[in-house]
Amino acid sequence: MATYAQAAALLQSHERILVLTHQSPDGDTVGSAGGLCLALRSLGKQAQFVCSDPIPGKYDDMLRTVEPQHFAPDLIVAVDVADAKLLGPGLAQYAGCTDLCIDHHASNTGWGKETLLEGHAGAACEVVALLLKELGVALTPEMAACLYTGMCTDTGCFRYSNTSPRTLRLAAEMMEAGAPAADINLKMFEIKSRSRLALERMALDTLRYAYNNQVAVLVLTNGMIEASGAEEGTTEGLASLPRNIEGVRIGITVREKGAGDYKISVRTDETVDASALCRTLGGGGHARASGCRLSGTEGEVVARMIAAAGAFLPEEDAP
Amino acid sequence: MATYAQAAALLQSHERILVLTHQSPDGDTVGSAGGLCLALRSLGKQAQFVCSDPIPGKYDDMLRTVEPQHFAPDLIVAVDVADAKLLGPGLAQYAGCTDLCIDHHASNTGWGKETLLEGHAGAACEVVALLLKELGVALTPEMAACLYTGMCTDTGCFRYSNTSPRTLRLAAEMMEAGAPAADINLKMFEIKSRSRLALERMALDTLRYAYNNQVAVLVLTNGMIEASGAEEGTTEGLASLPRNIEGVRIGITVREKGAGDYKISVRTDETVDASALCRTLGGGGHARASGCRLSGTEGEVVARMIAAAGAFLPEEDAP
Repeated sequence: MATYAQAAALLQSHERILVLTHQSPDGDTVGSAGGLCLALRSLGKQAQFVCSDPIPGKYDDMLRTVEPQHFAPDLIVAVDVADAKLLGPGLAQYAGCTDLCIDHHASNTGWGKETLLEGHAGAACEVVALLLKELGVALTPEMAACLYTGMCTDTGCFRYSNTSPRTLRLAAEMMEAGAPAADINLKMFEIKSRSRLALERMALDTLRYAYNNQVAVLVLTNGMIEASGAEEGTTEGLASLPRNIEGVRIGITVREKGAGDYKISVRTDETVDASALCRTLGGGGHARASGCRLSGTEGEVVARMIAAAGAFLPEEDAP
Repeated sequence: MATYAQAAALLQSHERILVLTHQSPDGDTVGSAGGLCLALRSLGKQAQFVCSDPIPGKYDDMLRTVEPQHFAPDLIVAVDVADAKLLGPGLAQYAGCTDLCIDHHASNTGWGKETLLEGHAGAACEVVALLLKELGVALTPEMAACLYTGMCTDTGCFRYSNTSPRTLRLAAEMMEAGAPAADINLKMFEIKSRSRLALERMALDTLRYAYNNQVAVLVLTNGMIEASGAEEGTTEGLASLPRNIEGVRIGITVREKGAGDYKISVRTDETVDASALCRTLGGGGHARASGCRLSGTEGEVVARMIAAAGAFLPEEDAP
């Protein structure tokens, strides 16, 4: 486990730094990478980030000043990548030769040669922001925009329990350094695509309740995704929809992946162990957010999930 | 205009303080009032807040420790009340005898005898938090929960442009004083009632686009509100839905108020003056958020709004 000083020394002693992000890139991995590259360039180094997947268009504006650079790297750094397999197929070749992994996932496997890890940070961008202080980088508005983006996206705009007082203070520093916070928040949280909205409408039509409205089930089929014109990734966030209904203890999202093949997401309140529920169906995960995979017809899978959920309601509410 | 020191001196020199909130109470007026009462009580004073309307149930938990007190006040203080008429019918008698108004609305009319006003603060709770520092109050978790609630609700959980670095730092202080931020955010922002969700689904079914998807129109009828079982107030936030669709410049919500009577909300991006648009129909408001009132059948009103909107699209996009 590296300290901030050790991680800073490693970066300072190299000149051509390649930054790796995780596949299915989100605001935190991209913001960390963009911010770190701009910061390293401000120190006179070459720096470039890469990703196994295309970067979604909503980050274009933020990354506009991270012009491409081409060089043979002398240091490989990964940001927000908890496990080598999350690099994705396009970056798999770096799995064994990553010098430094900067991360905030408590589950980080320690796959990098060195790891700068804060398992309680709200975002990898929080760790990067502190590392830049150690490096003595003078923040520009562009760096600040990148780092603010990661902090706000990974914390649901400072909503979730991973937000700490330090997260808020670092976000305040990013605003002072010139991050256009309100514009970023609008783009990241308010604006929805027409296809996402169409998909939401179709998904809401499938919403059904059980056990006196304590269990809610949402279904997403390939037909709906096709009809809505939604791209992969547009389903983001829909898994928490059924759980966020007043009175619901167990929210279930059934997502068709192929013929007769369904990926199930389970979200629960503090009275139900989602992980235990999913383990009874061969899955697993966290106490409040877990998942499993089931086969059958849509009707069979939904019925099976409702039955499984019933056994996990608190005794006074059980069916 | 009072300074923090003057406002603090006024509170310090009185013993029985009545705190007024605005009608249709929101998290900021209730949080300011609850936090201020608890703080004044911690200084050995009597303090109680009142409201013209019932306090929504979602604030029950936060206000649980603000036990009712009954006394003849020697000081009347209003929080988050920009204009005496916003006190509502139940508190109208205090319009002429309010000693101190603590507010963050730049539009405050100066109706109180003294006014502690920061027109750029994100929330009245931000002003109250600074006033409590001036008073030397030791924050309890209960006070912090009240003040955090106002800060997060008035800024859309730190999303909107009224959020400043200071807002974020004060919110961090509230977390350190024991405000259960993630729980509060969940209750204020994530949890939707079944009826609200049902109403959203029905409203989404009415969504229509015009002028190459640059104008979006949503309709809310009394029939939908009845069918959903939604209470008054459940339509909150729906007015911004059509505007928050990717590519939409003018978002219009048509809300049936009575037979042939429609209240229109118009939300625009930075290229369209919503106020000018609504003025052509006898309404008005702000540059990005305005409204008007129209009569006719639903179809006539929607057609009229679409026609009016077309004239306000930037030239290259006009119909």
